[in-house]
Amino acid sequence: MITTGPMYRTFDNALLCQHLAALPHIAVRLGGAPDDWEIAEVSDGNLNMVWIVRGPDGAVCVKQSLPHVRVDPSWKMPLDRTAFEAAYLRDVAPLVPDLTTALLDFDAERFVLVVEALTPHVVLRTALCARSATPGFGAAIGRFVGRSSVMTSLLNGPFEGMMQRIARFAANTTLTRITVDLVMTDPFCAHPRNRPMRPELTALEQELAADVALARAAAALRQRFLGTPQALLHGDLHTGSIMVHGQDVRVIDGEFAVCGPVGFDCGQFVANLAINAIADPGSDLALNEIVPFWAAFLAETERAWAEARGSDIHAGIHAGAGMADPATQAALRTAWCDGIYADMLGFAGLEIIRRTIGYAQVADYAAAPDRAEEAARRSRAIGLARRLLVQPAAFGDIGTLARAVADARGDAV
Amino acid sequence: MITTGPMYRTFDNALLCQHLAALPHIAVRLGGAPDDWEIAEVSDGNLNMVWIVRGPDGAVCVKQSLPHVRVDPSWKMPLDRTAFEAAYLRDVAPLVPDLTTALLDFDAERFVLVVEALTPHVVLRTALCARSATPGFGAAIGRFVGRSSVMTSLLNGPFEGMMQRIARFAANTTLTRITVDLVMTDPFCAHPRNRPMRPELTALEQELAADVALARAAAALRQRFLGTPQALLHGDLHTGSIMVHGQDVRVIDGEFAVCGPVGFDCGQFVANLAINAIADPGSDLALNEIVPFWAAFLAETERAWAEARGSDIHAGIHAGAGMADPATQAALRTAWCDGIYADMLGFAGLEIIRRTIGYAQVADYAAAPDRAEEAARRSRAIGLARRLLVQPAAFGDIGTLARAVADARGDAV
Repeated sequence: MITTGPMYRTFDNALLCQHLAALPHIAVRLGGAPDDWEIAEVSDGNLNMVWIVRGPDGAVCVKQSLPHVRVDPSWKMPLDRTAFEAAYLRDVAPLVPDLTTALLDFDAERFVLVVEALTPHVVLRTALCARSATPGFGAAIGRFVGRSSVMTSLLNGPFEGMMQRIARFAANTTLTRITVDLVMTDPFCAHPRNRPMRPELTALEQELAADVALARAAAALRQRFLGTPQALLHGDLHTGSIMVHGQDVRVIDGEFAVCGPVGFDCGQFVANLAINAIADPGSDLALNEIVPFWAAFLAETERAWAEARGSDIHAGIHAGAGMADPATQAALRTAWCDGIYADMLGFAGLEIIRRTIGYAQVADYAAAPDRAEEAARRSRAIGLARRLLVQPAAFGDIGTLARAVADARGDAV
Repeated sequence: MITTGPMYRTFDNALLCQHLAALPHIAVRLGGAPDDWEIAEVSDGNLNMVWIVRGPDGAVCVKQSLPHVRVDPSWKMPLDRTAFEAAYLRDVAPLVPDLTTALLDFDAERFVLVVEALTPHVVLRTALCARSATPGFGAAIGRFVGRSSVMTSLLNGPFEGMMQRIARFAANTTLTRITVDLVMTDPFCAHPRNRPMRPELTALEQELAADVALARAAAALRQRFLGTPQALLHGDLHTGSIMVHGQDVRVIDGEFAVCGPVGFDCGQFVANLAINAIADPGSDLALNEIVPFWAAFLAETERAWAEARGSDIHAGIHAGAGMADPATQAALRTAWCDGIYADMLGFAGLEIIRRTIGYAQVADYAAAPDRAEEAARRSRAIGLARRLLVQPAAFGDIGTLARAVADARGDAV
């Protein structure tokens, strides 16, 4: 566990400028001299410091780990999380260069990451809450997950590469611990870290903690999340980890990266669309992206599947007749996608609940006109989540899921 | 990939004595002086050198990696496989001390492992072929797999420990590559490394390679084996990796250890019982152990489940009512065991086929009185294996599986 090292100091503006000036490829990109650079601190997530640095010729985004949670200095945390974000970008950015940010530099001693600045992009959640997001982001994320998951799985290349990837990201235990605790465990235990609306949702929190079927589903999903390194996951793919500007869609913040079930990323994304749809029934922006997300995921999975090469899963494709059979390929791909869909339902259920009564809640619910209505919307979201967790068979296809989200908006508009 | 290092030399008797004499705890165990020690080379597997060293007071077994496959010096191989066997024994021997050998020493520079000598034990396969094995070994192996799998899974301890274990054994790619190629791929591709009886089984080998349903099942099992690190596996749990003396049963040769689906170990063991039963229909020794193996596995899984502590899967057991519910525990355990049973069927099918037409075949088939009968028995074994792979639903419980093995012995006695 790396806390601080001899080279580490949390940057102030002077240290930040000095760091960038010493990186010729970054200095050239910014242009001018360090005195010409404008620095804006834009930290928005819970964990890290983030700055946008602008020079006469360009801008970069700089991210540095803190030895604690940014929003809670008493919650100590090792610094290595930016190293996992850098490793994630090295694996994924070349696969979907138009859908994430290029890694420009990583300093492993100062835990400083430099990536493309995304301007004038805004966080997708902010755009959804403002009802200003441009349609199409769902399909973009479907393409992002479809391609990056096939290409970082056993379906692409000999298994030895995947074993290395599994081992590397298995070391990202600090942030995986946050996922296991905050997403998958605390909300089902009436944990002190939960923050349900009180008094409106206190009884609901207790009810969840006493629900045997829910506990069983959550336990099975923890096992699935931790025991199925199907592909390299983003690990935190909610609408706050996506930047948009018009039709340009970029996934950021890959520090939670770990090898796991692809349905986890899908479930987090769909859950946050569902939350926005239920929290703000006056806007269909999020709701309308659910079906296109999954359609794009399926289409991109099919494309990537055809382009993937040299896997041990496909071994024998040239030697024997069996694997060369197109129906065999289609059957394997269908099983792959069906498994991801099933996982997606469960993980979406967990994410909706934790974002509604857990530690890290979301701004979307502020759309309600008053507390009573907000509590009602949160309750309806949790009702949907429970059905996703204990009656997944009722959500046989993506259209059914989207209709269930629409129904969970009740009569309010 | 470690081939040879500065300290490595393949031992001769003099180097071996010198090595053991420099290990005080080993020298004391042997007693006397190095001149009093008797060395017998007993290499039996395909990969390594093995010696039994006897002194006046005791004996040890010494195993050293070679920089190539022992039985094929042209097949180069890194030395680190004994390191994985040592790591496996460190994890597993404390859990089932009466069912494996204690690790006495490991030299990571010379790749030399020293374990308890098992005398006068014989290899279980040899005892089965001689029809001299003492009943009870199936239940012993069921207990071995049941306990070691639960205790090296996410069900025991915080997930961070399991992630470390997954990462450590993910590096055992050399031997995992052998498993993927020789067990799961080559036999389904009419690969030049296969060695079917020619001409009797040449057509059958071609038929297997053209079988679409079989190719599909094998691909799905490769994915399952490489993508489901459920517990620390032995990785090569056939009857040649088990030593017996009366009712004393010991698992040896853990160098293939990797985190994977528990059904893989179960399937390899059951497959080798099935092969013996079909290859030698005059003996019921192996056949009669199939049901007790599984019964002991279930019983030991239940015991270990109750003893396992501190897992994230069971998190909330004290905080919420849900996980404390005995029915929840039973439901999770049943799902765990059912999944392993399903995996076992498929992996048993792969193992039967590869041991019958693949590179590393087994001596059991020598029981046949002539070539024609041997080919008939091998064909019947492969017929059973194909059904296990493509019609697993026909083997709903362990009794059905055992009857199917009995039926595959045909009318011959």
